[in-house]
Amino acid sequence: MVDTTAVTVLGLGNMGAALADAFLAAGHSTTVWNRTADKADPLVGKGARRAATVEEAVRASPVVVVCLLDYDAVHEVLDPVGGALRGRAVFNLTNGTPRQARDTAGWAGKLGCEYVDGGIMAVPQIIGSESAFVLYSGPGKAAFEAGRELLEVLGSARFVGDDAGLASLLDLALNGAMYGLLGGAMHAIAVVGTEGVKAQDFSAELLVPYLTSMTGIIPHFARQIDTGEYQVDVVAALGMQQVGYRNIRRASLDQGISTDLLDPMQSLMDRRVADGFADDDFSAVAEVLKNSGT
Amino acid sequence: MVDTTAVTVLGLGNMGAALADAFLAAGHSTTVWNRTADKADPLVGKGARRAATVEEAVRASPVVVVCLLDYDAVHEVLDPVGGALRGRAVFNLTNGTPRQARDTAGWAGKLGCEYVDGGIMAVPQIIGSESAFVLYSGPGKAAFEAGRELLEVLGSARFVGDDAGLASLLDLALNGAMYGLLGGAMHAIAVVGTEGVKAQDFSAELLVPYLTSMTGIIPHFARQIDTGEYQVDVVAALGMQQVGYRNIRRASLDQGISTDLLDPMQSLMDRRVADGFADDDFSAVAEVLKNSGT
Ligand SMILES: NC(=O)c1ccc[n+]([C@@H]2O[C@H](COP(=O)([O-])OP(=O)(O)OC[C@H]3O[C@@H](n4cnc5c(N)ncnc54)[C@H](OP(=O)(O)O)[C@@H]3O)[C@@H](O)[C@H]2O)c1
Ligand SMILES: NC(=O)c1ccc[n+]([C@@H]2O[C@H](COP(=O)([O-])OP(=O)(O)OC[C@H]3O[C@@H](n4cnc5c(N)ncnc54)[C@H](OP(=O)(O)O)[C@@H]3O)[C@@H](O)[C@H]2O)c1
Repeated sequence: MVDTTAVTVLGLGNMGAALADAFLAAGHSTTVWNRTADKADPLVGKGARRAATVEEAVRASPVVVVCLLDYDAVHEVLDPVGGALRGRAVFNLTNGTPRQARDTAGWAGKLGCEYVDGGIMAVPQIIGSESAFVLYSGPGKAAFEAGRELLEVLGSARFVGDDAGLASLLDLALNGAMYGLLGGAMHAIAVVGTEGVKAQDFSAELLVPYLTSMTGIIPHFARQIDTGEYQVDVVAALGMQQVGYRNIRRASLDQGISTDLLDPMQSLMDRRVADGFADDDFSAVAEVLKNSGT
Repeated sequence: MVDTTAVTVLGLGNMGAALADAFLAAGHSTTVWNRTADKADPLVGKGARRAATVEEAVRASPVVVVCLLDYDAVHEVLDPVGGALRGRAVFNLTNGTPRQARDTAGWAGKLGCEYVDGGIMAVPQIIGSESAFVLYSGPGKAAFEAGRELLEVLGSARFVGDDAGLASLLDLALNGAMYGLLGGAMHAIAVVGTEGVKAQDFSAELLVPYLTSMTGIIPHFARQIDTGEYQVDVVAALGMQQVGYRNIRRASLDQGISTDLLDPMQSLMDRRVADGFADDDFSAVAEVLKNSGT
């Protein structure tokens, strides 16, 4: 059975355009709208229907996918046409905080529309491929189930709970981790670049293989965190790591590269050691983060 | 042909003990010394020879592997017995800065010993396995070639150049990146933990797969950095990422988790956008790091 659900996409930035493109490629009747109208041109060339107004776009399909810059844009675009949303399913894939997702779910509930918030765990280039996945949560679980086949066109669709904020929380946590990974990689590339090592050679031969293998240690740390036992099966004691980390900082300074990205980790480790936990494994820094939030 | 080179290991902390263990397992005659002598007991039980003094340990083998906490410890241990090193090969796998490695290479040269500095890219648990590798560099390339078979026992042995500081620089850069990865992961785990999400479930189902797939984007950024073209083949514009990153910070604060690890990346992105590069890809943060080192 072919799924022929018609879908509307609001927002055609890098990501929204990729979403619309994937729907079109899968044969869905796709209506698009963007504030700057000409961004729809390439999609119209591929068969998309361009709506002249937001209201026209919303009324064109039972499923509305929203992908704008932020929640301010979402409300600027949707608030004036709220009535048109009644009875439709809204999948809001705009990046925002859990609080914003919950507030918007409440707003949508009053309008009588099925609301699901989502977090896209992919870059536009891989939308529609196997490695893309999208997290969904919110009160509109029935709408998610009904629309699952359509949504799977974008990437693996995972419903994580009825709380509209949960998909966003997981999304932000995962992307925070991604920025740690990528920031560390950019810093390493800058450091070795000072000695003429090419970023592409360094990445291919050392950096990517090393980081990929190091992700394998995370489940071990996760176990320590779940049990609160930071001195069991220690990989490397914080007392030793604290010393090694100073060398990382020192070498960065010696090479003229900013240590801005490195500094906070040094203080987390120093703090834990000063508190008397030099024998803890690295995962104990999670404990410090928990106890110093504001 | 079986390699039967005798080897001495100075330092039996978590890592030194793993090195000695691997040499023993491969059938090498292994002499060990540690400041706190009883740490040698398990190794002696497996056939290692315990030396009573550093000098006795050094004189026992043509190859000396050093794995102490830091370079202060290296000099404290080796300076008094310098004469005994003449004609031997020293592989110093202690973590230090490029500058320390170069200084120590100069010191060793005057003593007439073959010196190679090294960086161990592995945790003790995987020493001797396929995923472990050790970077070597320094004036003693001939000693490295002669000792290669022995060194391969620890993990893949890679000689990266005659500059004694290069192995260390690559090591520190790679480990700096690793701390970015692992710090980001610990932060993410702390954030989702506030909503009762178990670290082990989150890691296995979302975090590790996501981070592993995201390492695949690093070569793309490396290409942009090598060419200096940050606006070609953009994955996600900094102007958009700057907004998304604020949500990551905001959600972390809302959940009561410290944003210490997140804050510097926000200012790097903000700075690049303020300088007029909102359309740059993420890799442009490497440019900011280069231009703000002291
Ligand atoms: N790109 C990625 O890698 C990626 C990955 C995961 C999630 N996301 C999320 O997806 C969403 C869109 O990202 P993107 O990459 O498509 O960003 P983008 O290329 O910067 O596009 C932003 C979109 O928002 C629209 N917009 C902004 N302010 C508006 C307003 N006040 N009223 C109406 N429309 C407004 C823009 O319209 P105009 O064209 O008229 O300016 C454009 O369609 C963001 O929440 C982002 O965090 C992106
Ligand atoms: N563990 C890892 O995951 C890992 C990974 C890569 C590289 N490394 C590097 O390997 C080296 C050793 O690490 P490790 O994990 O074995 O550390 P560790 O368990 O803390 O052991 C430190 C070793 O240094 C000795 N030591 C410290 N100060 C000394 C001094 N003043 N005089 C004589 N001996 C002294 C200690 O002797 P006592 O037993 O008498 O205290 C012990 O043998 C470090 O440079 C580390 O950065 C470790």
